[in-house]
Amino acid sequence: MARVLTPQAEDFPRWYQDVIAKAELADNGPVRGTMVIRPYGYALWERIQSEMDARIKECGAQNAYFPLFIPQSYLAREAQHVEGFSPELAVVTHAGGKDLDEPIIVRPTSETVIGEFMAKWVQSYRDLPLLLNQWANVVRWELRPRIFLRTSEFLWQEGHTAHATEQDARDYAVRILHEAYEDLMVNVLAVPVVVGRKTKQERFAGATNTMTCEAMTRDGKALQMGTSHELGQNFAKAFDIQFTSAEGGREFAWTTSWGSSTRMVGGVIMVHGDDDGLRVPPALAPTQVVVMAVKPEVVDAVHKIGADLKAAGVRVVVDDRADIPFGRRAVDWELKGVPVRVELGPRDLEADSATLAKRLSGGKTPVALDELSTEVPRLLAAEQAAMLEATRVERDSRIAEVSTVDQAAEAGADAWAKLPWDTLGEDGEAKLAQSGITVRCLTRADGSVPDSDTEGGLVAYVARSY
Amino acid sequence: MARVLTPQAEDFPRWYQDVIAKAELADNGPVRGTMVIRPYGYALWERIQSEMDARIKECGAQNAYFPLFIPQSYLAREAQHVEGFSPELAVVTHAGGKDLDEPIIVRPTSETVIGEFMAKWVQSYRDLPLLLNQWANVVRWELRPRIFLRTSEFLWQEGHTAHATEQDARDYAVRILHEAYEDLMVNVLAVPVVVGRKTKQERFAGATNTMTCEAMTRDGKALQMGTSHELGQNFAKAFDIQFTSAEGGREFAWTTSWGSSTRMVGGVIMVHGDDDGLRVPPALAPTQVVVMAVKPEVVDAVHKIGADLKAAGVRVVVDDRADIPFGRRAVDWELKGVPVRVELGPRDLEADSATLAKRLSGGKTPVALDELSTEVPRLLAAEQAAMLEATRVERDSRIAEVSTVDQAAEAGADAWAKLPWDTLGEDGEAKLAQSGITVRCLTRADGSVPDSDTEGGLVAYVARSY
Repeated sequence: MARVLTPQAEDFPRWYQDVIAKAELADNGPVRGTMVIRPYGYALWERIQSEMDARIKECGAQNAYFPLFIPQSYLAREAQHVEGFSPELAVVTHAGGKDLDEPIIVRPTSETVIGEFMAKWVQSYRDLPLLLNQWANVVRWELRPRIFLRTSEFLWQEGHTAHATEQDARDYAVRILHEAYEDLMVNVLAVPVVVGRKTKQERFAGATNTMTCEAMTRDGKALQMGTSHELGQNFAKAFDIQFTSAEGGREFAWTTSWGSSTRMVGGVIMVHGDDDGLRVPPALAPTQVVVMAVKPEVVDAVHKIGADLKAAGVRVVVDDRADIPFGRRAVDWELKGVPVRVELGPRDLEADSATLAKRLSGGKTPVALDELSTEVPRLLAAEQAAMLEATRVERDSRIAEVSTVDQAAEAGADAWAKLPWDTLGEDGEAKLAQSGITVRCLTRADGSVPDSDTEGGLVAYVARSY
Repeated sequence: MARVLTPQAEDFPRWYQDVIAKAELADNGPVRGTMVIRPYGYALWERIQSEMDARIKECGAQNAYFPLFIPQSYLAREAQHVEGFSPELAVVTHAGGKDLDEPIIVRPTSETVIGEFMAKWVQSYRDLPLLLNQWANVVRWELRPRIFLRTSEFLWQEGHTAHATEQDARDYAVRILHEAYEDLMVNVLAVPVVVGRKTKQERFAGATNTMTCEAMTRDGKALQMGTSHELGQNFAKAFDIQFTSAEGGREFAWTTSWGSSTRMVGGVIMVHGDDDGLRVPPALAPTQVVVMAVKPEVVDAVHKIGADLKAAGVRVVVDDRADIPFGRRAVDWELKGVPVRVELGPRDLEADSATLAKRLSGGKTPVALDELSTEVPRLLAAEQAAMLEATRVERDSRIAEVSTVDQAAEAGADAWAKLPWDTLGEDGEAKLAQSGITVRCLTRADGSVPDSDTEGGLVAYVARSY
């Protein structure tokens, strides 16, 4: 069979480009660094969106929509924020046939404009917490764009909340981190992320604390999949978000923000894909099962199977294109990473049987036709669990436990390393940076997220990153 | 009771502003003409999105996403298109810390960039029809912005399709018009739109035919709620969308585009709202029913009722804020237009009864508690049907059948008029334009959408418009 994709071991970045093109996930846009998300890529994003949206609402936040355009003066109000984002901004200077008096920023993120409105809406402690989320596009000019991972425009959700106390803000930022982000990544994307706290060096511009979910890609690098920030009172002071407390005093609110983006689609590709293409976990898959007619004479039968599986709650597509060679179609479904293929030929039909081909764990097994509607959902659940477990085992096997900065630099060249943060410290962090290795996050020894980077006994995860 | 809103009869535009502010639907953004959609306004939009998305997918189109940024040179390729949109464009001239070589347009609509990619993806007649849709923000600089109706940035879906024949393109544009747009507007929004064909004068820039759904607002004006365009081969020629036909020749494709936006939220407000606030049809309402505790001692009981209604498939909110005066809460729910209130006080509870307050048709009726779960869904369906019917009767009563252009000018000053297109013609259209009256659409005598504006016996609907 002709090779469809560059093998991962030969050139991982080229494999990534190949799979994005061949599985028809996305394309480069005409303006540098932008992307076109094609229907199959967008279907993955829609599934992520719907699962994420449900979790965010479960955490009590409401969706809203704030403008794409932000006055330049807003950004300047929070010093670290403007410093961090200035090099990445796109600026509108001309609109409606005229030059503008004040240039307009195309939002790179919305802390500033949302801060302005929170200040209007929050009057009393009774108005808090104010829990908002928006689904939007944002623009950050990219010098080295890579589809889904770093694009000049991307799609995301950004949550923005205001609270009466620092503790309440922290609790909410942590809740989103675990109940929305980690839960979705682990249980839907089957990506066993390491969840921890960023070092000062890696914090979001304007945050007092950034927490993150980090995935390991198949080439041993790290990918930041979602972040949740405590913003302290920085933006509250910059935008005057004040409230009257229960005691009658005026206080600044404590705010948070948190975001996850189309980058997660890139994460799924890079964490699960293999030399045959994508591998999509069943809980995510827009198409969980394809029912394939091997020959024209079984077309009616595959439609019957498709209808039965749909009735059993399976997201199913029927492939009745018996005029196209079966092998070519099978390769294409493998490329797209559909978790399970039900293959039916004339002899199978005579024997009241079909073949289940497992894209994720591999191999084929026969199954009686009258057991399909119970067997397929069971198999999908089993494959989901097995995929998560296998990915976790693989990940853990590639995290070297080291005890010196030099060992971390060596191990971090093509995998992850972990070592005591007390050993590494900010000096060690700076030293690793010279080899392109960054501290992905800090966790406690038990894996939980620390309240501060000065706690004793913390573990630092280090790696190269996308 | 203090007046919350300016009465419609006193000043309709001010009433509209009032209801948007008081029902917390939206706010003006900091950049001229932009808007902030607040959670309740966004919830209305999310419901419209989800209903529209299902209909569009039912028509076979797939969602995708194309970039916000379009090279300026793309727009210039279709002469009428660039002429129509030039005055409304926002232009990025600076990005990533540098002046750009070629200015970038913030998309006002995406025919051009999607045309570019259709040309890549369409090779053979087998690739057609290509049916795409995207949910996105677009920017059209507005000199006289009005929240939801005309804003410099708005949210919408834009569909873009390519077909092998003119007939297939036309059929699809008509299918979307009826099965997606008209169906949603009539059956979800309870807005009895007039569906017809635009005159040449009112066509989309670059289209060979524009079809429209027109609503009548409560002040007798017209509001264009959604449009579907045949683009002929204009964009196919500008972007070289060619395919190999079944016979082996090279042909240009026939394309369509169609859009509906956050303007529909404004339509619902203007078509259904009254002096007490919004009136939201049950099929649209994010909250169909609010269960109100009149006094603290019935708080447990209202939660029980809420749970029962939720189990019966009703979108329900429980208002247990018995510390806030009942009247104030009731006024607020009226303002938000929630279709049905279930009011429960201690004496009601003793009598195993509650009161149903009907926001749409007005009035209150008692109902036995054990009948609520059957009675409320029945009432919601009945209110939906009655609202559509009442709106249709009201609309029809305000469409004057006239026979001269002068009569149309008089009648069209504060309501709609209809007259034979043969009588009006393009000269009459120009004359009406002097009084600010436009031809909203042309229909056949039986109400169907004509294939051409030169068919005999057409009816022209004329009105002032938003």
